[in-house]
Amino acid sequence: MNTENKKSNSDYEELMQYLEEAQAYETALILFEWDEETLAPEEAGNRTARMQGVLSSSYQRIMMSERVKELVDKCLRELTGKPVLETPDGELTEEGIRYAILKAAKRTIEEVSCIPPEEYRAYQELTSKSTRIWTKARKENDFASFVPVLKEIIDYQKKFASYRQKDGQKLYDVMLDSFEPGFTMEKLDEFFGMLKEHIVPLLKQVMESPVCIQDDFLDGDYSEEKQRELAEYLAKYVGFDFSRGVLAVSAHPFTTNLHNRDVRITTHYKSRVDSSAFSVIHESGHAIYEFGIDDRLSQTPAGQGTSMGMHESQSRFFENIIGRSEAFWIPVYGKLKELFPGQLKGVGREMFVRAINKVQPGLIRTEADELTYSLHVLVRYELEKMLIEEDLDVKELPKLWADKYEEYLGIRPENDTEGVLQDIHWAQGSFGYFPSYALGSAFGAQMLSQMKKEMDFDRLLEEGKLDVIREYLRKHVHRYGKMKDSREILKDLTGEDFEPKYYVEYLEEKYRKLYELSR
Amino acid sequence: MNTENKKSNSDYEELMQYLEEAQAYETALILFEWDEETLAPEEAGNRTARMQGVLSSSYQRIMMSERVKELVDKCLRELTGKPVLETPDGELTEEGIRYAILKAAKRTIEEVSCIPPEEYRAYQELTSKSTRIWTKARKENDFASFVPVLKEIIDYQKKFASYRQKDGQKLYDVMLDSFEPGFTMEKLDEFFGMLKEHIVPLLKQVMESPVCIQDDFLDGDYSEEKQRELAEYLAKYVGFDFSRGVLAVSAHPFTTNLHNRDVRITTHYKSRVDSSAFSVIHESGHAIYEFGIDDRLSQTPAGQGTSMGMHESQSRFFENIIGRSEAFWIPVYGKLKELFPGQLKGVGREMFVRAINKVQPGLIRTEADELTYSLHVLVRYELEKMLIEEDLDVKELPKLWADKYEEYLGIRPENDTEGVLQDIHWAQGSFGYFPSYALGSAFGAQMLSQMKKEMDFDRLLEEGKLDVIREYLRKHVHRYGKMKDSREILKDLTGEDFEPKYYVEYLEEKYRKLYELSR
Repeated sequence: MNTENKKSNSDYEELMQYLEEAQAYETALILFEWDEETLAPEEAGNRTARMQGVLSSSYQRIMMSERVKELVDKCLRELTGKPVLETPDGELTEEGIRYAILKAAKRTIEEVSCIPPEEYRAYQELTSKSTRIWTKARKENDFASFVPVLKEIIDYQKKFASYRQKDGQKLYDVMLDSFEPGFTMEKLDEFFGMLKEHIVPLLKQVMESPVCIQDDFLDGDYSEEKQRELAEYLAKYVGFDFSRGVLAVSAHPFTTNLHNRDVRITTHYKSRVDSSAFSVIHESGHAIYEFGIDDRLSQTPAGQGTSMGMHESQSRFFENIIGRSEAFWIPVYGKLKELFPGQLKGVGREMFVRAINKVQPGLIRTEADELTYSLHVLVRYELEKMLIEEDLDVKELPKLWADKYEEYLGIRPENDTEGVLQDIHWAQGSFGYFPSYALGSAFGAQMLSQMKKEMDFDRLLEEGKLDVIREYLRKHVHRYGKMKDSREILKDLTGEDFEPKYYVEYLEEKYRKLYELSR
Repeated sequence: MNTENKKSNSDYEELMQYLEEAQAYETALILFEWDEETLAPEEAGNRTARMQGVLSSSYQRIMMSERVKELVDKCLRELTGKPVLETPDGELTEEGIRYAILKAAKRTIEEVSCIPPEEYRAYQELTSKSTRIWTKARKENDFASFVPVLKEIIDYQKKFASYRQKDGQKLYDVMLDSFEPGFTMEKLDEFFGMLKEHIVPLLKQVMESPVCIQDDFLDGDYSEEKQRELAEYLAKYVGFDFSRGVLAVSAHPFTTNLHNRDVRITTHYKSRVDSSAFSVIHESGHAIYEFGIDDRLSQTPAGQGTSMGMHESQSRFFENIIGRSEAFWIPVYGKLKELFPGQLKGVGREMFVRAINKVQPGLIRTEADELTYSLHVLVRYELEKMLIEEDLDVKELPKLWADKYEEYLGIRPENDTEGVLQDIHWAQGSFGYFPSYALGSAFGAQMLSQMKKEMDFDRLLEEGKLDVIREYLRKHVHRYGKMKDSREILKDLTGEDFEPKYYVEYLEEKYRKLYELSR
């Protein structure tokens, strides 16, 4: 090894020590959040918030330090161009990993550094205030009280985006890029345009179909104890590894990961048995992504799923493409009948699978079925674009929201609680986040189309060989962490750039069949 | 306010910021430990250990920094002498609180700073190794394999104690002081001498008494679900505040506190119903101490219970003095019968209370009854003194251990697993810790004697007015945190220095009555 290499190695090692320290603070923050959502006593909150403030400052202090910036730039300069990611036999290369860590660190540094600290603090106070105002407004169906703070948040978001804006770049594109690198309004207009063109009329046909699907048996006397047993069974069945993960209860289901050996999911138990069952499969999909990340990447800035959309692609792949398929339930339905013999009396597997796929346009995104889900997202995408790019007056939101729901889903909210106030995202300043929810489903459908060329997908499900599917996804998606962005993953997996038609085809095929529609 | 005061205030504020940062790392460490004991997946351990390493270094970096030392000394110099702790109407004074925080910070700094970092690191590796060796040795009943590492640990402990040793101070006294400030071998010889003189013969009489206490009904078909209901009921009944605390399950019961608004206890559910019931009352006692600490002290270096012994005094006060009394069960026994009508069929309250007080000398300290408990500690105290002060050869431990058990408890371990290998303390390097277990019981008995002069103690229990007792303890013990050491607390509460005779009298009275012994 020559001196030059030695030098660069010791720079890299020094950097890794800083990053490890930052990661420890970050992980402690995640643990505090997890604890707060699942267990912590109610009165702990104020003190916990102060400690989180300290840990978050310690994290930022490292990521904003001159030394760390210097080391990242130095180490990046020493790598000439983007290195090869894989060896001929398919292992991730050390250079590839190093490059991914440096790029991700650089991105984080830029995100942390571009906003002046006073502004960032003021903004944090604002969003903390605004989520309280939103909670109250939603509860009291009082959109007017939310208007002033929402305006302020949008102004901040625009200002922050302008700090990161490159020549000629649109502000909303800056926001989109932070959740889904490589995606712009141009690409999304094409995507959502296609949904509007095909899914809106498809839904109309479905709603007019004489096919009637019975699903009343899904709601009933499903005991929490048995539902818990089912949840554990399903999580394990789809590949959630309990030696590396935890399943707990919280108000809303979520996944959190400390690193690839500690990924935690939650669910909630309601009277509808499919609610916890599918939330657990969904969150298991997120978890399986994180379990699959290469050991050398975990606990580094490149050691999580590559984007919101790619994450959602995996959770929805498990929940919908796998979990709501006929084939999946062939080996599993017996277990369900065993757990709930009374509740499912006279309900055969086919009847059950039809029920869990029933289309029912509703007002609430998080309760939407697979077909209508992306239309909820479409509404939000169109409104966000107007808010950011066309200076839409915030006051106009409720009416536009209701109009769009009526146009796309055929139903109109009677109040703002069930309408424009339903999601927390805008109160938290998350603009550009919603599209990823719909993109995820589309990524998954595109992957499925390729996988069906390479394997007998349904047969694998029928035979309970989920490990083959999981291993395929691990190899082509999970292990890379942030080494590839979502478009690169799709390109390498399918040979094509992102292509929304697969999603439309998938939905068309599935729901035309279920509702016996002609083409 | 003059300039001098302003200056000293800004020094103090600067110091408090450092301490708050240190406390955040410390609290994150505690949360990781809690999480590991109660929930974390098995494979998380290695990564968690590395993060704990980072957080622990960050804590030490602050506490060892020149600036923090300087600020502590400066602020201490500005307080002339020990300030008055209370205002005339009994509130804690700001000066008193400030003084306590500064003294506790100074003590922590000295503890952290006196050991050279290389030695500390080597020692940490050693104890991590030794607990693994101990675990294996205990499992395989192989004391010989534990001997070399135990020798090394003792050498380190002596060396570390020598760094803190003051002129003429004995090494074991240095160790005792770190767990129980103000206590020395001189005081403990007197205490344990008295136990030997009175409790050993008392136990002999008890064992020879013809009184036979039936307790077989305590072991049986007690479902975990009902035991959990009982545990929650008892915790709440004795004053565990669920809005500030959590009850969870772990292999061994313990209490941990993040601060006075977040105190967590655990229990385990076994076939003996009294096992979880009394462990929950015991841990609730620890928790109530921490809940009671003044808000201004919590999350500072002076914001925990003042010593191991004082902590144990509160847990054992709740467990034994309150929980195993006849009067306590008068309002509570109905609940127990309601939960376990079949299991307790034909068992009246009196019979139940006799059963939970049955004396049964055993080999295992953690399973000991109230009478024999301190004799287990006596054995360890005598052996620790010999190891530290008389250079006892570690190899001699098993025989001496067995001899002492035979002499004091009338039984002899058949193997080292049930003998000298039973406790983890020595493997962790905790020498001087055991005596606090026995001191705690004695502190509690001394407090009880005073309380009985001031209130109708049994009547309060009979009427379920535990809040009066709790409030008394909060006022005289809990709220001070580390503002007073255990001897000062006793002195102020009872008018006397620590006086072991109350403990002996308490045990004599209780067990002579139960076993119908003449004086």
